[in-house]
Amino acid sequence: MSSQATPSAVFARVQASLLRQGMMQHLGVSLISAEPGRCVLAMPYTDKVTQQQGGFHGGAMGALADIAGGYAGLTVAPEGMEIVTVEYKINFISACQGGELRATGQVLKAGKRIIIASAEVLHLGADGQTRVCAAMQQTLMPVPQNY
Amino acid sequence: MSSQATPSAVFARVQASLLRQGMMQHLGVSLISAEPGRCVLAMPYTDKVTQQQGGFHGGAMGALADIAGGYAGLTVAPEGMEIVTVEYKINFISACQGGELRATGQVLKAGKRIIIASAEVLHLGADGQTRVCAAMQQTLMPVPQNY
Amino acid sequence: MSSQATPSAVFARVQASLLRQGMMQHLGVSLISAEPGRCVLAMPYTDKVTQQQGGFHGGAMGALADIAGGYAGLTVAPEGMEIVTVEYKINFISACQGGELRATGQVLKAGKRIIIASAEVLHLGADGQTRVCAAMQQTLMPVPQNY
Amino acid sequence: MSSQATPSAVFARVQASLLRQGMMQHLGVSLISAEPGRCVLAMPYTDKVTQQQGGFHGGAMGALADIAGGYAGLTVAPEGMEIVTVEYKINFISACQGGELRATGQVLKAGKRIIIASAEVLHLGADGQTRVCAAMQQTLMPVPQNY
Repeated sequence: MSSQATPSAVFARVQASLLRQGMMQHLGVSLISAEPGRCVLAMPYTDKVTQQQGGFHGGAMGALADIAGGYAGLTVAPEGMEIVTVEYKINFISACQGGELRATGQVLKAGKRIIIASAEVLHLGADGQTRVCAAMQQTLMPVPQNY
Repeated sequence: MSSQATPSAVFARVQASLLRQGMMQHLGVSLISAEPGRCVLAMPYTDKVTQQQGGFHGGAMGALADIAGGYAGLTVAPEGMEIVTVEYKINFISACQGGELRATGQVLKAGKRIIIASAEVLHLGADGQTRVCAAMQQTLMPVPQNY
Repeated sequence: MSSQATPSAVFARVQASLLRQGMMQHLGVSLISAEPGRCVLAMPYTDKVTQQQGGFHGGAMGALADIAGGYAGLTVAPEGMEIVTVEYKINFISACQGGELRATGQVLKAGKRIIIASAEVLHLGADGQTRVCAAMQQTLMPVPQNY
Repeated sequence: MSSQATPSAVFARVQASLLRQGMMQHLGVSLISAEPGRCVLAMPYTDKVTQQQGGFHGGAMGALADIAGGYAGLTVAPEGMEIVTVEYKINFISACQGGELRATGQVLKAGKRIIIASAEVLHLGADGQTRVCAAMQQTLMPVPQNY
């Protein structure tokens, strides 16, 4: 992303990629905000994201955290590049049900070969309460976009 | 799981939990095998699990690896207990499209308070080729089942 | 740690444990501060902590981050308990040489069975420059102290 | 490492790097074997590697696992390149004291930009017993050697 990229261009770049992700469209994930080095995504509670007790599935939290960090990385990658996840590690902090998840990804280091990011997943309950659900740390790699 | 548990009882225990996971039912995940300390699950390729390039989404691989390790843990947990994931870390090894994913979870240590597991995710291509897609390492905790 | 614990009692508790760690004494690690949920440690640059290029060894950064997070956990553990590390994950962000390392551990969640912590490792250069070297995420477990 | 590299050349390459690591020399770490994609290292029990209970320090296990994986990566890196650790994640499986540690690093994927490795740390007790102490998963990056 060149330094002249406008805020709306950064948002549009992330949005264009998100709309291509069949899984995220299916799970109803939406882009809340994207600015250089930071990205916020939301996932609503539905029966597509539950585990055996009816709470949000760890796999859903992991997937959301993964793309929040990955898209934070995309906001600092040069034009024509996209991002692949090399690896991530996620700690689950609390279980949650209903409402929605909000994941905020942030770039810790924007290297040419490797980008390091973190993400925090919050739960916004139907009752207005906010709670930290998960913390993720991640390694990303910029690669040429091939589509 | 008491040592007298029959193989079919182990399989049934895992199956009963898997059927309660809205997300996994939605993604078409099925149980291939479950024996003490080991569990194999399959996820078919559909547009519910794709990323922006049309390949399997990292979040789908992560979710599948997470439950493969978690259910391997369940096979060694005492009756009346279920498993929560404390954390996991996953490395993505190769991209893949079409066919299906097979995740094999294995228990590395079955402690009373903490269970450590790993999982390997393979891709079974439509052409019959098999390839390693991801490797996961995970910390689990047995908790009383509350349903 | 009961809520009445004085700041100096928290510091003394961590200090007492640190002095028992042969490895940390050997590497010259010292306790800078300890308060409920947070702990700061310093490691000087010597030829005991170098890798093949003369910089701080990743193993030294990892060890320092591990105990910074672990001692942050100790500050919130009940009296009579100590802390064992279940696992940690560390990303190396920049190489550094000379000066000293400062690791700050922080508790993200203080559960009864599991404590989740993070640590940031900074380099304080001989030239007064500060740089982030590493970021760690960690799972801890309180266990009865047996000495 | 070109495919013609003799076994002794692979061993010599790892040995030359290990001898430059002040920290590992200080802790008495020695190279047991190195072949393409695999490396075994040993660390003796001394008061330089203990924690507060007198057992091997997690930081020592972590450092040993880190270089076992890293040197496994070096055995598959082109001549003129060396290896830096991007990140690692380690689970501690059992505590151990006395005897020595043996860490075996193995390459899971040897990419041009990223190498993925794992390591297992065993304890060889003074009584001849062997026990798994730790399991690590790691991301490495080949970089030009600058010395």
